Amino acid sequence: MRKIFIGIDLGGTNVKIGCFDSQLELICKTAATTKADMGPEAVVDRIGDAAEKLLVDNDLSGEAIGAVGIGAPGPAKLDEGIIIASPNMPLFKNVPLRKMISERFGKPTVLENDANAACWGEFVAGAGRGVHDMVFFTLGTGIGGGVITDGKLVHGFADNAAELGHIIIYPDGRKCGCGQTGCVEAYASANSTAAQAAEAVGGGAESSLKELLAEKGEITCRDVFEHSAAGDALAKRITDETAKALAILCVNMLHITEPQRIVFAGGMIAAGDTLLSRIKHYFNEQIWSLKKETVEICFATLGEDAGIIGAAALATSLITRDSSDDGRWTNRKGFVH
Amino acid sequence: MRKIFIGIDLGGTNVKIGCFDSQLELICKTAATTKADMGPEAVVDRIGDAAEKLLVDNDLSGEAIGAVGIGAPGPAKLDEGIIIASPNMPLFKNVPLRKMISERFGKPTVLENDANAACWGEFVAGAGRGVHDMVFFTLGTGIGGGVITDGKLVHGFADNAAELGHIIIYPDGRKCGCGQTGCVEAYASANSTAAQAAEAVGGGAESSLKELLAEKGEITCRDVFEHSAAGDALAKRITDETAKALAILCVNMLHITEPQRIVFAGGMIAAGDTLLSRIKHYFNEQIWSLKKETVEICFATLGEDAGIIGAAALATSLITRDSSDDGRWTNRKGFVH
Repeated sequence: MRKIFIGIDLGGTNVKIGCFDSQLELICKTAATTKADMGPEAVVDRIGDAAEKLLVDNDLSGEAIGAVGIGAPGPAKLDEGIIIASPNMPLFKNVPLRKMISERFGKPTVLENDANAACWGEFVAGAGRGVHDMVFFTLGTGIGGGVITDGKLVHGFADNAAELGHIIIYPDGRKCGCGQTGCVEAYASANSTAAQAAEAVGGGAESSLKELLAEKGEITCRDVFEHSAAGDALAKRITDETAKALAILCVNMLHITEPQRIVFAGGMIAAGDTLLSRIKHYFNEQIWSLKKETVEICFATLGEDAGIIGAAALATSLITRDSSDDGRWTNRKGFVH
Repeated sequence: MRKIFIGIDLGGTNVKIGCFDSQLELICKTAATTKADMGPEAVVDRIGDAAEKLLVDNDLSGEAIGAVGIGAPGPAKLDEGIIIASPNMPLFKNVPLRKMISERFGKPTVLENDANAACWGEFVAGAGRGVHDMVFFTLGTGIGGGVITDGKLVHGFADNAAELGHIIIYPDGRKCGCGQTGCVEAYASANSTAAQAAEAVGGGAESSLKELLAEKGEITCRDVFEHSAAGDALAKRITDETAKALAILCVNMLHITEPQRIVFAGGMIAAGDTLLSRIKHYFNEQIWSLKKETVEICFATLGEDAGIIGAAALATSLITRDSSDDGRWTNRKGFVH
């Protein structure tokens, strides 16, 4: 029987579920509201129900599932499969999510941090293909990320590595929601980019964003990039400050883990070359002159599917094919639940 | 026959050579001037001669050598065993140092970056014992370092990872010798700490360092820390700025690779608690409040021997003992020259 792999991307609002073959080709996918306020058991039930419906609708048998991978937000004990806490899912405290999912599906299951799962998806099937060392940033409301060295995700000693939005780049600068001062998230996330534009306009700066603010009552990050592309000086300056902060992040990551490729993902990359060209400009301006650097800075290619692909990819490593001919699979030691 | 392992720490001025047993206990050591201006062949000869004399003086046989490890400065292709260039050894350009050392000793040899070798030494036998994830900084004329995740040195895609002195922490700040602006090396190395004190005194600041400068014609980093410990306000401020820069570095590394321990080494740690207590103070002040962090910040314990111990430790992994009884060893696949 052809094995299939389930990849789950659990978010505070929505949960995405994908069904993949062993080559990580997408067979079908679905999404559901998470309803995190109903608690972990109910959420796991919703995931199980949605996955069953997805299989039935696509004439697939639950028997064919080889393994399941789930990416979830918040600090976790990955080895134990436990979500410690999650800012957007207050009822998820010390939840043995891997065990719960594994029992619901009756299959070996792997738990990963959501940003790491998306990072792994881009690494195996997206913008990171062909390299062994990669850094991944998600630019959204906040900034998250993942670090891969020598083909492996860096987890850190307590599974909380790659909190890349909280790298300090401007000490004594803007306050960050995390309690630190000068985090890159306070400069270059969608929220902070929009906030800086609103502050400048509120402070009397001349800009085409001024009318927009009066009209809509708010400025979004997308507005800033659009007005920047249209030539507004203030929007250009804010865009440049965001790009410069991200470029400094790239310089720093190069000097730490020396990735071959740095991949930006998340809603903000819709800005396209308006943003990417400026990140590259500031990277070239900031980087040392001791040697020529060849790191590639690029945008992610998998969009919102990165998380389910990465989770499914991690699931494929839970079992190994005994032989390419007879199609039997066995659980791989050390990974199974 | 009891196997011995040679660890070599090659510097621009001196080369240190240590002889260790398979448990990394130091048997004997020596040092020689490098004479890098005589070229790579002459330097390798000097190393070989010094090692032979060391063995003879200690009644050891060259036959007993299991493998050799060498840590060397400058960018390298570690897999190929080649030193690409070295700022303090201008004649070392694309030198196949591993092959040259291996041929001179007639033994399998491993080449590592010098800061990585010292990092590995502290990891296996010093301040990093007992952890799997560690970050290592050397505070000297410049700032170097090493990163270990999940028990392995991070090398990066072209073997130039962990150039930790060139992490930018103050964009638009002090110029660094590397061509970047605001590197931590421009704030917290021995040279830059001394330079900042001299600049302040030269600018008319009141300080007990003023008389010292008039008397000696220069201020060293050690002077700054000594006058800080004695209560001088300017020296205290400079010490605090150095400590704060290092604390930001610790915060950033925690959010990237999440080490369990951060180890500072190099000449500057002679300052002892005058420096360490301030680094910890600023770390606690700067770190986020989202969760309690337990990373340990401490000083190295192996002193100048870290490099030879680390190089010897890397050498031990070149060969494996066939059996604990008959004492035969074989080359381990993939590592030997």
